[in-house]
Amino acid sequence: MPTPNSVRSGSGHGEFAAIERMAASLAARVGGPPPGERWIGDDAAVLVPPRGQLLLTTDMTVAGVHADLGVLTLADLGWRAMAASVSDIAAMGGDPLHAVVAVGGPPDTDLDELYQGVGEAAAAFGCPVVGGDLSGAPTVVVAVAVTGAVAPGTEAVTRAGARPGDELLVTGPLGASAAGLRVLRSLRDSEAPAGHDAALVEAHRRPRPRCAEGTAARLAGARAMIDVSDGLAADLHHLADASGVGLDLTGVPVHRGATEDEALHGGEDYVLAMAVPDRARVEAVFAERGLARPLPIGVCLPDASRRRLRGTALERHGWEHTFGAPAG
Amino acid sequence: MPTPNSVRSGSGHGEFAAIERMAASLAARVGGPPPGERWIGDDAAVLVPPRGQLLLTTDMTVAGVHADLGVLTLADLGWRAMAASVSDIAAMGGDPLHAVVAVGGPPDTDLDELYQGVGEAAAAFGCPVVGGDLSGAPTVVVAVAVTGAVAPGTEAVTRAGARPGDELLVTGPLGASAAGLRVLRSLRDSEAPAGHDAALVEAHRRPRPRCAEGTAARLAGARAMIDVSDGLAADLHHLADASGVGLDLTGVPVHRGATEDEALHGGEDYVLAMAVPDRARVEAVFAERGLARPLPIGVCLPDASRRRLRGTALERHGWEHTFGAPAG
Repeated sequence: MPTPNSVRSGSGHGEFAAIERMAASLAARVGGPPPGERWIGDDAAVLVPPRGQLLLTTDMTVAGVHADLGVLTLADLGWRAMAASVSDIAAMGGDPLHAVVAVGGPPDTDLDELYQGVGEAAAAFGCPVVGGDLSGAPTVVVAVAVTGAVAPGTEAVTRAGARPGDELLVTGPLGASAAGLRVLRSLRDSEAPAGHDAALVEAHRRPRPRCAEGTAARLAGARAMIDVSDGLAADLHHLADASGVGLDLTGVPVHRGATEDEALHGGEDYVLAMAVPDRARVEAVFAERGLARPLPIGVCLPDASRRRLRGTALERHGWEHTFGAPAG
Repeated sequence: MPTPNSVRSGSGHGEFAAIERMAASLAARVGGPPPGERWIGDDAAVLVPPRGQLLLTTDMTVAGVHADLGVLTLADLGWRAMAASVSDIAAMGGDPLHAVVAVGGPPDTDLDELYQGVGEAAAAFGCPVVGGDLSGAPTVVVAVAVTGAVAPGTEAVTRAGARPGDELLVTGPLGASAAGLRVLRSLRDSEAPAGHDAALVEAHRRPRPRCAEGTAARLAGARAMIDVSDGLAADLHHLADASGVGLDLTGVPVHRGATEDEALHGGEDYVLAMAVPDRARVEAVFAERGLARPLPIGVCLPDASRRRLRGTALERHGWEHTFGAPAG
């Protein structure tokens, strides 16, 4: 139907030309499909299914909500959209397989820049983009769906398996992404971040899913796992809710340059938090694989109503989107 | 990060409460997961992979672009978003397996109504929703990714396999969706469509992917196939481009109450168009399965530059979204 974002055309600046440029750009970065597969260019991608469990997830990234285009580029937004979904696969202990990317935006959106970031992330995460869709929309919005696999004979790690007494570990310090956004917003025009600030900014611009850590945790017997996307406090509550356990946190590892509030409530760190019955085994598997030792933050409690940080109530808040539909 | 669409909360009107309501509503319509699968509620859904080819596709539906909320409900929009992606699976000759649904919208969006339409479509198409995401956004946008399967030992039907001499068939008359939109826009307040208009309006509000027809076409030897989403003329050009053939169309079956322009360029009919080497075989397989006989519309030509309808050039235009990125 006619709208400001649509034209009856085969104009060359349109959707189909943009899709062809994207396909060529992505193929140059990550290579083309293996024998028996067909990627971009048909109604659906044709793929060889994995032999173990198949994982499937989606996330939506909206300019002005999840990405401040005053301080981030469209390439950053594209990278971050890929990272959010691939991180969900990491949080199950899976390996990402393929992504499909639906993009909406106003007519002046620089799709080539956006797809540059998508393609860089696809290459960095080993998750080729095999299809997508493009649409007019009043603001830039990117929805990425990703498939993943869990090796045959093993099981994905859900949020629901934690038991009282399990130790809680995180794969690294937290708050870097929120601190990076704070740094970016404090910089004057064309000023570049320096020193530790550069690492914080990189964590915000180009977050990395912890796929290797997720796989190691699964192999080392982690019973429950979640990625820190909404904020450590909110995400630990999600894990505890699903598992029916309480939380007794002894502390929170704060990334250098970040605050404890950013570490607890900032979100988008994509660090993994896990409940494990045997911490020594997890440390051994991580060491074997050359991964940084996970950091202990507390234990799971039998009383699901108890959620504490250093003896006081663990606040539940994180970033949550609100809608007007009636509850219940 | 703070925006008008986000709050630091666990407010009950928020994202997580809405997801729980959606999960319960969907489970009531399509049942829960089979043994060995986990659906909504974790970082990713855990699924049993199909044994044959795995299909994967995504489509984005934007209010005001693909759905006029002046004449459609949010439930219609949800249904149509599901239909667009499931139709892509039908166009490959596949069966839909699972959907993940990413939704963005302003704070006053009635998610329950939107998910009602999503759930009705999931039940009607046999494609359960196994995960999703919810986000603030300035307008309602729904991105649906769907997986599908092609039975082991057979192959998906792409756009690229048509050969000169293949006959072109469509699974039914065209233009009903565009005509339905025209009827809806012509109705006065609270006036209900009557007679043939009711069927046109239904085609626009609640389009149906042709999954049974797609499977039958695959089994009957269709060499190339596409669903009519952008418009018959545009989509036949896509098929001919991918296959490297020309088109000689003898006519276009127009749905009762629609115009030939709506049939050629309206889009969103989700009728399937296919190129077949043996029309009698296709008719026999469709008849065996109780499906309406496909309608012949022309043949494929060896000269890929010739694209004709009744002897004159077949216009390429359909609905295409435009972007400002430079071509080439």
